[in-house]
Amino acid sequence: MTSAVSKSPVQSIQAPHLLSDTDLTSGELQALIGLASRVKNAPRDYAASLTGRSIALLFEKPSLRTRLTFELAIQQLGGFTVFQDHRDGRIGEREPVKDIARNLDRWVDAIVARTFKQETLEQLSQWSSVPVINALSGKYHPCQAIADFQTLTQHFGQLEGLKMAFVGDGNNVCHSLLLCAARLGVSLTVATPPEYGPDPDVVARACELARTSSATIELSFDPREAVSGVSAVYTDLWTSMGWEAETHQRRAAFADFQVDDELMSQAASNAVFMHCLPASRGEEVTDSVIESPFSVVFDQAENRLHAQKALLLMFLTEEDG
Amino acid sequence: MTSAVSKSPVQSIQAPHLLSDTDLTSGELQALIGLASRVKNAPRDYAASLTGRSIALLFEKPSLRTRLTFELAIQQLGGFTVFQDHRDGRIGEREPVKDIARNLDRWVDAIVARTFKQETLEQLSQWSSVPVINALSGKYHPCQAIADFQTLTQHFGQLEGLKMAFVGDGNNVCHSLLLCAARLGVSLTVATPPEYGPDPDVVARACELARTSSATIELSFDPREAVSGVSAVYTDLWTSMGWEAETHQRRAAFADFQVDDELMSQAASNAVFMHCLPASRGEEVTDSVIESPFSVVFDQAENRLHAQKALLLMFLTEEDG
Amino acid sequence: MTSAVSKSPVQSIQAPHLLSDTDLTSGELQALIGLASRVKNAPRDYAASLTGRSIALLFEKPSLRTRLTFELAIQQLGGFTVFQDHRDGRIGEREPVKDIARNLDRWVDAIVARTFKQETLEQLSQWSSVPVINALSGKYHPCQAIADFQTLTQHFGQLEGLKMAFVGDGNNVCHSLLLCAARLGVSLTVATPPEYGPDPDVVARACELARTSSATIELSFDPREAVSGVSAVYTDLWTSMGWEAETHQRRAAFADFQVDDELMSQAASNAVFMHCLPASRGEEVTDSVIESPFSVVFDQAENRLHAQKALLLMFLTEEDG
Repeated sequence: MTSAVSKSPVQSIQAPHLLSDTDLTSGELQALIGLASRVKNAPRDYAASLTGRSIALLFEKPSLRTRLTFELAIQQLGGFTVFQDHRDGRIGEREPVKDIARNLDRWVDAIVARTFKQETLEQLSQWSSVPVINALSGKYHPCQAIADFQTLTQHFGQLEGLKMAFVGDGNNVCHSLLLCAARLGVSLTVATPPEYGPDPDVVARACELARTSSATIELSFDPREAVSGVSAVYTDLWTSMGWEAETHQRRAAFADFQVDDELMSQAASNAVFMHCLPASRGEEVTDSVIESPFSVVFDQAENRLHAQKALLLMFLTEEDG
Repeated sequence: MTSAVSKSPVQSIQAPHLLSDTDLTSGELQALIGLASRVKNAPRDYAASLTGRSIALLFEKPSLRTRLTFELAIQQLGGFTVFQDHRDGRIGEREPVKDIARNLDRWVDAIVARTFKQETLEQLSQWSSVPVINALSGKYHPCQAIADFQTLTQHFGQLEGLKMAFVGDGNNVCHSLLLCAARLGVSLTVATPPEYGPDPDVVARACELARTSSATIELSFDPREAVSGVSAVYTDLWTSMGWEAETHQRRAAFADFQVDDELMSQAASNAVFMHCLPASRGEEVTDSVIESPFSVVFDQAENRLHAQKALLLMFLTEEDG
Repeated sequence: MTSAVSKSPVQSIQAPHLLSDTDLTSGELQALIGLASRVKNAPRDYAASLTGRSIALLFEKPSLRTRLTFELAIQQLGGFTVFQDHRDGRIGEREPVKDIARNLDRWVDAIVARTFKQETLEQLSQWSSVPVINALSGKYHPCQAIADFQTLTQHFGQLEGLKMAFVGDGNNVCHSLLLCAARLGVSLTVATPPEYGPDPDVVARACELARTSSATIELSFDPREAVSGVSAVYTDLWTSMGWEAETHQRRAAFADFQVDDELMSQAASNAVFMHCLPASRGEEVTDSVIESPFSVVFDQAENRLHAQKALLLMFLTEEDG
């Protein structure tokens, strides 16, 4: 419909929804990263791409980055956005998830949801005829992973053959990194305390995906070993939202997993530091590392905006314009 | 101003505000239903109808359908919307309602309010030079009734001569149905427990209005008698928002008023089931009934969007463009 | 870029941020007031002035006027707006202010913030490459002051030589009035109880600024003396947000500072009554005064919209289009 589409043909995503990173093929992931860069360089070319399209955001958790970047992405693409705040009552509490989904799909062209439970997303998708996009669940954070690999592509020129380490809690961010790294041919070692490793099913799936790319997926309990020679060291909060009761216990368990200058010195000399934010300085990362010139955390945050625009374009616009 | 207006002349509503269904004439109600259908079929024809117009939403209660459909309606018509959340302090608590109204009418072209008390709406309207629209009060729910009769029109082709029953709590939804049914020539029997009947003044007004249409308005304490042979069976939550303290007592009082397959079998063979949602399965309706092919509850929900667009167009755009 | 800009060239503000009224020169203040009037008279001329620009609102306090007028101003100028509600956790609580600023400035063209502490604004500005605009802090309320002097200009035709009095609590509104009055050549007497006077540093700065205009800045403990012969009497809540614990004690301290008909009778015969709202009738002002024909409180409220549009235009649009 718009000149933007004719300038940059947008490939469609085959899966009906994005619940987990496994809903994206390697080709789709690469296309997303490429489109995200084009959108970043020429945002005005896409200013009318979602004209007349409406998107609902349902959020069970407070959010700075996720809410703002989705609301901005939708508006900057010419679409309409409505926000439903579920901090005071989870999705499905006041009425069944299947009813919410069947209401929304009459009004909007896509549903973007941030949920505690992956099951909530799955239920939404089962009852929705429009795409449901995971904006962060307890299990996955695919939007973050797309922005992260966009950041690495920008920084290093290409992803193929890159090695990275994730150090800390084997959480939703770690799960999405594992699956996307495996798809994209990036070798990833995840270093966690024994009792805080990533979900074994996710690891198994990542290993399976890695077989068809040039990636190696490894688990470790030793952060120094994990970061040795890698081009990117990634960490996240030790205590994600929803786990606050364990804060004290987690601090003890993760004490040796802080990313500090000494740990960074084990990585490649041109290695970058990554974090999806918010960060807790003095816990998972030192102020010195996050504020260093090799920290790309604000590039990652910026790319959330562009990556999510690419995602919306690939879900909602026609391949041939 | 726009091609939409020239394509479909929009009749204006004579009353300055929509506080209760009685603010609409029979002709206006019919025009609203007709316009809602035209908007549903050709939404893009109205994409610029509210260009440059701003509308404030004030909500004292949480809301999925009402907030989202108004925010989408306004945006999809080309207007601007601002939302004021009054869950943490009712309208009039921090400053007098008359001051709020006199602030808002300097900035916006209409005020859409969802309030506990009808008096709050009345006060807003007394001090506002721009239309105040009732988006649900403790006493009326006119936007729902317009969408409901739009749904019945779509389903049955015409309203004239139709018979329907409302079973359950004689609440705000029931009040608006009574008044609109009477205006539109739809015969309505309301079956409630003796102590939960609709407001006698509303019933009296509905009976008075019914005299000029072909409608019959009746009250009953017997759900089976009420639904006998009707084309539509309508119910709503036994415990509306604000009455949660009475939940237990209400469950006992309403025990015989559940809409189940057996009750539906007393209605006409082509009868539809209606509910304004959210529904509490196992209380006012069984899962079997709400999930059946004759349930039109999601059509009703969808039509909220179109009906409210029609309402805004009739309040805010010029008859002759 | 737009015809609006070519019609009315917009002067840029030199300071990178608007944290306090002292960030504006006298010339800029006058230009703001002039532009605010042009925008008020011809809003549609500016309907595309912020096309493609995005602005984030961060609010630590509930707000009717400030939030709604900024959201409307941005939309009515063609821009995009996102709102971050910080009532449940102050800015900087979940992550450092410097991180929030460095995230936001990647996504938006300006940050509008309403904070308890002036320091929060200062930190935001130190880490933001885009303008940070004070939408009300514990210390200043520059947007209100611009709207107030726009109101006085409309009412009296010009500001030069005007005398006004502020009676009550020497708060943020009083501080901004002091600084702007001094800049604009309006003589201002502030009457407060001895222990509730304005910040001595602000007063000193206002006196310094007044030396280059024709204004006189005076403090007083006597409301009758202060309002004698003035053209405008201004008051505000005795207990601003955040000071509720002192309500009782403040009522006693301010008992002689109520603006009533008797006090107004000491002012010039054509004097206006001003208040930034919300008002607490029977405390700082009587119902009789705020509802009188010489009350311009709703003009002040209306002008918030126009003044803030002028501010955004001067910060975000190019002088020569």
